[in-house]
Amino acid sequence: MKYNEIFEKIAAELKDYDQIGQVATYIPALAKANPNKFGMYLVTREGHSYFHGDTDETFSIQSISKVLSLVYAFKLVGTDLWKRVGVEPSGSPFNSLVQLEYEQGIPRNPLINAGAIVICDILMSELKNPYQDFIKFLRSLAGNPNIDYCKTTAESEKECGFKNSAHINLMKSYGNIENDAEEVLDFYFHLCSIEMSCKDLAQTFMFLASGGKNPVNNKRIITAQETKRINSIMLLCGFYDEAGEFAFRVGLPGKSGVGGGIVAIYPDQYSIAVWSPGLNTKGNSSKGIKALELFTTITQSNVFGPSPIFDELEYE
Amino acid sequence: MKYNEIFEKIAAELKDYDQIGQVATYIPALAKANPNKFGMYLVTREGHSYFHGDTDETFSIQSISKVLSLVYAFKLVGTDLWKRVGVEPSGSPFNSLVQLEYEQGIPRNPLINAGAIVICDILMSELKNPYQDFIKFLRSLAGNPNIDYCKTTAESEKECGFKNSAHINLMKSYGNIENDAEEVLDFYFHLCSIEMSCKDLAQTFMFLASGGKNPVNNKRIITAQETKRINSIMLLCGFYDEAGEFAFRVGLPGKSGVGGGIVAIYPDQYSIAVWSPGLNTKGNSSKGIKALELFTTITQSNVFGPSPIFDELEYE
Amino acid sequence: MKYNEIFEKIAAELKDYDQIGQVATYIPALAKANPNKFGMYLVTREGHSYFHGDTDETFSIQSISKVLSLVYAFKLVGTDLWKRVGVEPSGSPFNSLVQLEYEQGIPRNPLINAGAIVICDILMSELKNPYQDFIKFLRSLAGNPNIDYCKTTAESEKECGFKNSAHINLMKSYGNIENDAEEVLDFYFHLCSIEMSCKDLAQTFMFLASGGKNPVNNKRIITAQETKRINSIMLLCGFYDEAGEFAFRVGLPGKSGVGGGIVAIYPDQYSIAVWSPGLNTKGNSSKGIKALELFTTITQSNVFGPSPIFDELEYE
Amino acid sequence: MKYNEIFEKIAAELKDYDQIGQVATYIPALAKANPNKFGMYLVTREGHSYFHGDTDETFSIQSISKVLSLVYAFKLVGTDLWKRVGVEPSGSPFNSLVQLEYEQGIPRNPLINAGAIVICDILMSELKNPYQDFIKFLRSLAGNPNIDYCKTTAESEKECGFKNSAHINLMKSYGNIENDAEEVLDFYFHLCSIEMSCKDLAQTFMFLASGGKNPVNNKRIITAQETKRINSIMLLCGFYDEAGEFAFRVGLPGKSGVGGGIVAIYPDQYSIAVWSPGLNTKGNSSKGIKALELFTTITQSNVFGPSPIFDELEYE
Repeated sequence: MKYNEIFEKIAAELKDYDQIGQVATYIPALAKANPNKFGMYLVTREGHSYFHGDTDETFSIQSISKVLSLVYAFKLVGTDLWKRVGVEPSGSPFNSLVQLEYEQGIPRNPLINAGAIVICDILMSELKNPYQDFIKFLRSLAGNPNIDYCKTTAESEKECGFKNSAHINLMKSYGNIENDAEEVLDFYFHLCSIEMSCKDLAQTFMFLASGGKNPVNNKRIITAQETKRINSIMLLCGFYDEAGEFAFRVGLPGKSGVGGGIVAIYPDQYSIAVWSPGLNTKGNSSKGIKALELFTTITQSNVFGPSPIFDELEYE
Repeated sequence: MKYNEIFEKIAAELKDYDQIGQVATYIPALAKANPNKFGMYLVTREGHSYFHGDTDETFSIQSISKVLSLVYAFKLVGTDLWKRVGVEPSGSPFNSLVQLEYEQGIPRNPLINAGAIVICDILMSELKNPYQDFIKFLRSLAGNPNIDYCKTTAESEKECGFKNSAHINLMKSYGNIENDAEEVLDFYFHLCSIEMSCKDLAQTFMFLASGGKNPVNNKRIITAQETKRINSIMLLCGFYDEAGEFAFRVGLPGKSGVGGGIVAIYPDQYSIAVWSPGLNTKGNSSKGIKALELFTTITQSNVFGPSPIFDELEYE
Repeated sequence: MKYNEIFEKIAAELKDYDQIGQVATYIPALAKANPNKFGMYLVTREGHSYFHGDTDETFSIQSISKVLSLVYAFKLVGTDLWKRVGVEPSGSPFNSLVQLEYEQGIPRNPLINAGAIVICDILMSELKNPYQDFIKFLRSLAGNPNIDYCKTTAESEKECGFKNSAHINLMKSYGNIENDAEEVLDFYFHLCSIEMSCKDLAQTFMFLASGGKNPVNNKRIITAQETKRINSIMLLCGFYDEAGEFAFRVGLPGKSGVGGGIVAIYPDQYSIAVWSPGLNTKGNSSKGIKALELFTTITQSNVFGPSPIFDELEYE
Repeated sequence: MKYNEIFEKIAAELKDYDQIGQVATYIPALAKANPNKFGMYLVTREGHSYFHGDTDETFSIQSISKVLSLVYAFKLVGTDLWKRVGVEPSGSPFNSLVQLEYEQGIPRNPLINAGAIVICDILMSELKNPYQDFIKFLRSLAGNPNIDYCKTTAESEKECGFKNSAHINLMKSYGNIENDAEEVLDFYFHLCSIEMSCKDLAQTFMFLASGGKNPVNNKRIITAQETKRINSIMLLCGFYDEAGEFAFRVGLPGKSGVGGGIVAIYPDQYSIAVWSPGLNTKGNSSKGIKALELFTTITQSNVFGPSPIFDELEYE
């Protein structure tokens, strides 16, 4: 079966899935999302693209930006990064503050909020113009000069970001934040506010499926070792409290955001982005996960082993 | 390079690694292990075997048995299993009791002690002769009728297993243990006490690299879906508080035990077991992890992507 | 106003209070208690007694026994006691296990379950015949040779005491339990099962209102210093998560049990026991606390200061 | 023995106690305190004053201000206060954030930092000019128009108050902070910075020993019921993680600050303030506690019962 056909089959199979899940409502920018939107965009190692649905429309990438800021910081400071943030899964979020306290202000990994905030702090220390430098980095990865922050979203996030303030101040009390707390949070909320399309995301993440090189221009972003590190962190920590479930169903390193986007990569093969704004109770795109599950099953690209193919699949 | 040559290269490279790490000392059976022992055993999908060092000598498999009891219970009760134990990583162990309390007696996953104890409880409810039935299951997987429990080890474990008693009683207070607490623990400690060789382990785990079928006799142990589930749990939860580090370095689903054994599988390709009794501070075989890291790098079988090959590798 | 009149006034005032609160139901022995029972018994320093209602009927003293076992252990080992248990309030019970873990197996105080279990362990190490010696000690304090354990209650407690098993095993893992866990718990459950009347309790606790001497025969039980210690622990830790509220309302050192009994002492003045089986949401006798509040207000014996007298009191 | 003689006796007895303990060093204003300073000031119900040592010198009252802000807020909003802060001891401070999270942003009591911050928030909502109104309230209680904030201290506190920022932001995320977090903290740090002498403190707290009335001008500050409430909270929660020890040794409601001051009251009898900057490991004045212990023992005013008098006292 060709990729285009696979996408159509998946879309048909999941046409009733829009009703499942709830659009995030804690800020207006997310609440107004249309729950019927759905897109899938695939980029292969050979440079081919396949897509279906609303793949050019931009949405708030939210926590997906955590991977990109991590990559940038890793590039800048190398393995010194691991002195300030761990690489292990974090367990359930109920104890995020106590865990941070127990581990003396060192977050478990860079994809939980506390860890991503430390990454922002590093970028602010290392970069001359963090806001500009970062967005430039992103535009170059995506090959799209129009990617930008959404000021309205960033402002809304700030107005209800008290728990993030609690985390950053606790870390500052342990000496793990160098810059002014409010300024770091402002940067952090801006990163969450970035808007991209499925196409942008699939293109942007392609270097993680190519051993660290941008496959278009063959420019190295990070080393092969570093790529392995990022991919392993995504698989283990990329889906909040649903990492185990995602690993089983989809079986690829990836990252989701509460805007309904998910991006995943199959090392040496492809990068894929999906978007559907309805979230499950764990805060991940309900239809997005299902679509990726079908895709990796049909294409036999779940890293944990082959599965019965499409027609035989049973859904719970 | 052929597998035998790779093994020799790794052994040469790591000949000074025996000094690294400490043999587990909390029970006599483990404390008396010879820290210079080292073995690697590989079984491929095609049924070929490759080995190096002390691969016929048996050792205490300890927590590796948690995967095998999980497989057996999964086989018996299917997805009902997930009503009593989760599939998510658990974060650091410091809060194992509070997490169990917070989650109402449902352990985070079946590879932490609390989860493995629930699995034992299920086996005791489902099996007529749990001790005999389980060891028979294991012998058949390994193709070795001599595999057995070590009564001495089981007794020693029991004498210092108070934290496990705390866990099982807390779970019982939430209604997640059906059988008598002492009896379940006795079974649990017997499972930990099982002795196997690298050869046994690699053979035993081969079905997880074969979509759930025993490749020797083509007999199905569990379904392909179930195999995917077990493999994803191993990758995310198989190495205590070092899962993220193992995923990066080795990049394969696996499980370690404080006896110094590690077993890992590469879906559709191979099963590999290593043994070296010296443990790192996280309780995993120090030399064992390093050997597997070299192996998956040279053979490019880390699921998170290709790496610079052997000669260029730098060690920290 | 004379004490008898005060009691009558209180009983009249609170005649509708029986409906408030719920009899404990987790074991049959408690569940069958008659919620309409009510008794108050006062012993003064001068040796006078005043009483009202069901003061001769025995009930399960439950956690009130924790004070008596503490006194006995303190008598036996002196201030060495504080190496194994603290003297500070414990905060809310939700984190009892994690707190115990954080403080390396040393319970916060001797009136929470974990602390009382350590006290039982000490008594078992120090006494030849702990069961007999302890009940003898109690009979002599109360001047009543009929006081005894209730085997049925003790058995019922054991059948649902899994959380206590979790606590004792955790402490044993830290080396803070010397004897066999099951045997210590059996003794602990027996202490909880002791049955006494209001009269017995008021007599028994009188030495704590007399600087440590039995006022009847002038025999010293513990020193004045030790008495001060016990009294201060009762005030700060005697009422689960309602210590602050009890201190405000009643303003006396005391101890409650889920059998509905409460005993309190006014240093140098009197000992008073009340019984009413209906419990509030914190597990303390609802009517009992109210009755004591009225009593210490009318008699101006709340240690935190004078209050408006009876007729002007407003109830929330 | 007369009070003056008692003070001299205590001072003589404790003359070597200055060496014990460490002056707080986390901010310069405290670090520069002279560890040899020592003062005791007593005000009796009859209006007599007795004093010894450095009782006119001012020092940073720090957490002692928490009682005064509590009284003011209680006066303004009455028992509605308890919807936003509890009255129970908090256990050890290691879990202050998780406890706050568990209890949905409601601090355990008003004398821990989180609770005192909520009180500040209430004052800011209720008062037109919180800074001026509060200091005026204090000056009138102390009868000293010179009492004031120390701007330098307040600034220093702010610069290292990240843990307090963590607490207030966590509470704000639960909706328990109405005003701007930074502004509330500024007020909070100003309250901590207030400077008073032993004389000021003893005078100021005298109304808590007089049923809520200023004994000098007979003006009611709070009701007798409210006074009882404040006193009981002080006894149970006034000494960080040393409340139980203080209750035993001193046996009076009181409050300490890391500036080395302690104030305590004996209901209906007296108010007493001590000052000695050296702190014990729990953060309370080492010599101050000892001096109060001797004082309440000699004067037999420990509420938990009589003790052997002075000459027979043994010190650990």
